Amino acid sequence: MLNHEYEGQNCSIASALEIVGERWTLLIIRDAFLGLGRFDEFQESLGIARNVLADRLQKLVEAGVFEKACYGDRGDRFDYRLTKKGLDLHLTLIGLRQWGDRYLCDKPPTVARRKSDQRRLVAALVPVGTKSVPIHEAEFVAGPGRDPTANTWRVIASKQ
Amino acid sequence: MLNHEYEGQNCSIASALEIVGERWTLLIIRDAFLGLGRFDEFQESLGIARNVLADRLQKLVEAGVFEKACYGDRGDRFDYRLTKKGLDLHLTLIGLRQWGDRYLCDKPPTVARRKSDQRRLVAALVPVGTKSVPIHEAEFVAGPGRDPTANTWRVIASKQ
Repeated sequence: MLNHEYEGQNCSIASALEIVGERWTLLIIRDAFLGLGRFDEFQESLGIARNVLADRLQKLVEAGVFEKACYGDRGDRFDYRLTKKGLDLHLTLIGLRQWGDRYLCDKPPTVARRKSDQRRLVAALVPVGTKSVPIHEAEFVAGPGRDPTANTWRVIASKQ
Repeated sequence: MLNHEYEGQNCSIASALEIVGERWTLLIIRDAFLGLGRFDEFQESLGIARNVLADRLQKLVEAGVFEKACYGDRGDRFDYRLTKKGLDLHLTLIGLRQWGDRYLCDKPPTVARRKSDQRRLVAALVPVGTKSVPIHEAEFVAGPGRDPTANTWRVIASKQ
């Protein structure tokens, strides 16, 4: 699966980018955090070519970021679900989102909050040992900058 | 500067990736966090073609991630320095690094720590309002997994 695109780099960032640095890959993972899981949902949300999407999903399954979960009576259909390894990409995505929110958008289209009390959550640089919120206690929901006509939000609405 | 690679996406992550999602871009920014700043330093550290590096640096200056700072008697040479906007990418990079450290490396090649007391720093998901460490109080130094023969570390050593 690894492309070794960044040969000679002694760096976890380079290794991570070999898995998640391809075009569209982080947006597929973002969609999974927003609750999407089926091939057609990703395709509609992202509007990308089916062969590109199939390639990215296949690589993410091989890399252990997604696992396939069967559903339906005949067990011949499946969702793509984030594994523990995939869920652990949340800080990368939230870091990118906060940066985009601060510098590139008027209002945040998506916010992270704690399920139990709806308190807003952020990624932050803290001393090791600081109490943090486990990702399974968090949810990602529409923020004040949501454009309800955007593909992704339409797909999410159709699931609810 | 923006490529609008991710047309139709109502998302800060997509907007952020239009600036930092190109191949090599996040590694150039990583190098800047490690203290590199000159064209030749980036080139030696990353081993990429000069025209690719020049393109990426130019785009990052246009996007306000880097600024050029003149040095030398004649003022005709310059460093690339991270702006405030560039420095605010630290959570994205640390998030990627932690993920790589956890899943892709034996030992971390690089660690973040607080300058004042050398305490290890991490990116974490926390409730908004949690006390965090400003990026200018942090430094990135070699960790236990450092390969001193890797290009980047050789360039860093030659500056010290």
